[in-house]
Amino acid sequence: MNAEIIGVGSELLLGQISNTDAQYLSRQLSSLGIDVFWHTVVGDNRDRLLQTLRIASDRSDIIITTGGLGPTMDDLSKETVAEFLGLDLVLHQPSLKRIREHFAATGRTMTKNNIKQAMFPRESIILQNDIGTAPGAVMEDNGKSYIVLPGPPSELQHMFDHYAFPYLKRKSGQGIYSRVLRIYGIGESAVEEKVKDLLENQKNPTLAPLIGVGEVTLRITAKASSPEEGEALIRPMQQEIEKRLGTAIYGFDEDRMESVIVNLLREKGRTLSVAESCTGGLVSNRITNVPGSSAVLLEGCVTYSNQAKTTRLGVSPKTLAAYGAVSTQTALEMAEGIRNTSKSDIGIATTGIAGPGGGSPQKPIGLVHIAIADQDGARAKELHLDGDRMLIKNGSAMRLLNWLRLYLLSLK
Amino acid sequence: MNAEIIGVGSELLLGQISNTDAQYLSRQLSSLGIDVFWHTVVGDNRDRLLQTLRIASDRSDIIITTGGLGPTMDDLSKETVAEFLGLDLVLHQPSLKRIREHFAATGRTMTKNNIKQAMFPRESIILQNDIGTAPGAVMEDNGKSYIVLPGPPSELQHMFDHYAFPYLKRKSGQGIYSRVLRIYGIGESAVEEKVKDLLENQKNPTLAPLIGVGEVTLRITAKASSPEEGEALIRPMQQEIEKRLGTAIYGFDEDRMESVIVNLLREKGRTLSVAESCTGGLVSNRITNVPGSSAVLLEGCVTYSNQAKTTRLGVSPKTLAAYGAVSTQTALEMAEGIRNTSKSDIGIATTGIAGPGGGSPQKPIGLVHIAIADQDGARAKELHLDGDRMLIKNGSAMRLLNWLRLYLLSLK
Repeated sequence: MNAEIIGVGSELLLGQISNTDAQYLSRQLSSLGIDVFWHTVVGDNRDRLLQTLRIASDRSDIIITTGGLGPTMDDLSKETVAEFLGLDLVLHQPSLKRIREHFAATGRTMTKNNIKQAMFPRESIILQNDIGTAPGAVMEDNGKSYIVLPGPPSELQHMFDHYAFPYLKRKSGQGIYSRVLRIYGIGESAVEEKVKDLLENQKNPTLAPLIGVGEVTLRITAKASSPEEGEALIRPMQQEIEKRLGTAIYGFDEDRMESVIVNLLREKGRTLSVAESCTGGLVSNRITNVPGSSAVLLEGCVTYSNQAKTTRLGVSPKTLAAYGAVSTQTALEMAEGIRNTSKSDIGIATTGIAGPGGGSPQKPIGLVHIAIADQDGARAKELHLDGDRMLIKNGSAMRLLNWLRLYLLSLK
Repeated sequence: MNAEIIGVGSELLLGQISNTDAQYLSRQLSSLGIDVFWHTVVGDNRDRLLQTLRIASDRSDIIITTGGLGPTMDDLSKETVAEFLGLDLVLHQPSLKRIREHFAATGRTMTKNNIKQAMFPRESIILQNDIGTAPGAVMEDNGKSYIVLPGPPSELQHMFDHYAFPYLKRKSGQGIYSRVLRIYGIGESAVEEKVKDLLENQKNPTLAPLIGVGEVTLRITAKASSPEEGEALIRPMQQEIEKRLGTAIYGFDEDRMESVIVNLLREKGRTLSVAESCTGGLVSNRITNVPGSSAVLLEGCVTYSNQAKTTRLGVSPKTLAAYGAVSTQTALEMAEGIRNTSKSDIGIATTGIAGPGGGSPQKPIGLVHIAIADQDGARAKELHLDGDRMLIKNGSAMRLLNWLRLYLLSLK
């Protein structure tokens, strides 16, 4: 069984947004063992969408459209799929009721346009929208399934997971099971060297590398008829890779560096506080994205100014005068300062030059000092990072978090 | 003149990466006045790529492939385009020399496979790769241009900007000019109601809405032969929309809420500090993403614990005991506290329940209090937000920032 994903929207063709919906659906379809052979993007244009549907219906079993379910005249996905299949639209009362309730709950005024969002072919299966107004639908024709989904990612993902996924699971038989190994602190080619034989010599499971920004990911994928069988195929290869890469593997599947750290802090019974200069709140923000982080993160201070470094963290004015705000000494005092003033077990700190201003020959843009303090004192590292302000903020945060992870792993 | 972008790579169809190359190219092509009517993504598969090229050559003038220029057997874009056009590949000595030099410069060993990257049809225009090893190419056939570009975004962007853009600029005559209007605090359908006549009755310039997460965007696009002519076409429509939407328009083009705020703070000569509970550093992080924010943001405190709210900000333990950490009273004291302790002109604060834990019937997940303090005291707003932890963090941050923007606009 194979699928084609059709993104509908001129904003995609103008490059205003990226087609993240196709990425999300591709992952989910792959986990169902459904091959995705094509993505297509077409504008809000009836004729070109009809042409796209004609091509897709010739070569694909499952045709999914994303976007174009809004209330405006430009939104024509559902109407065009129905036209392509020769189906009329009628008012679906339960959907109209839901849309009314949604507007009432969010305190907004429903417009006449929104009624269009409750019109569907009589024969279709309605996919409820728990997040926004536009329901989706499945229309079946000639052994093929046409699934229309809304464009906003939060609506699409929730609707797919809750209402389209179960439908597709029934239609497909075998599953694909996979494990993602997340790696940090070792380059792509070095990882590939270490698992070269596994990459070359593979059938079921397969192994594939994947580069992200500053991290490397390996994905083991097995075809199997049950989760247990899938796990039995994946396990030996996973163990072999773990043996070779050791602690460079920081997590699996949906793990993120910050979720691994929150888990480690809970496991080791340690509390954390964060003092940030050049990362400006990014480290705190990452950690507080993790549910339950409030149990281990006591507080964060974004001390951009020298004054704040002194009053909030107790960094000595002498240190700032002698070495400057971007220095090993300041980083050490920031980490110790946030640890002491917050009474947490561990204090971490960043100070550096993220640019685009503020660089000098002695202290160029990309120079960053990071530090970790505990009951035995503080230690610092000096980083030299490339890229723009965002890359330097992100690189500093990831390196500090990875260092903190290795530190936590070393604790008894 | 119209273009089609064909992304080649199974990693796209598996959802391992998002098709950011198509987004980048779409923007650049749009700025050249070249209409992009289709994006297609196809796997590393000769037959399906040939089929895709056949469809594209029927409907598009410029066909751009991205990816599949690497040294491995899986990389077959250039070979398949040449096969489709009936062209043979020959060794391009200058490219081989460059690839050799690239390997020498990066201290890596060149493999035999890399020679494949220097093979091109004799008739093609070579596009030099200044970042990586694989050059690209333009092949012309029957009035159409086939452009093969590498997949890694940094290589693709540099090659396109420096070598493909000038080629396409020569081919196209007219330019497209556009202005994006960024709107916050008013729903999509309400915006459309207000500009309905402009949406319906358009030719040059055109107007199109675009929904993002929690914000609405309108794009005015004009076809013109010079930037001045473009501006003259855009200006009247922009002024009409500004008249109708007023301060709901927070910015233009590449503006972001946080960059608008940093500009307003500079303009009004005010300094800011941020006290965050439920947003956990997100507000500080957003503001510090803006270059030059260090001139106006004095500091931020992430005070997750009650203790930190008291010691860092001076929130009274009595207030916390009587009303709880998530309350109007605590938000007011947080905003006043960060303002006083940081000695800044303005203090802002968030406190709420982002979930998934911590909710109760009296204080459900999504209840958030935000506050702004200045020399005249503090005021607070109560929010009721939907969605998961990330949506609640983001929604709280955006509403606070938008409120701060309106507050700053009201200052003399």
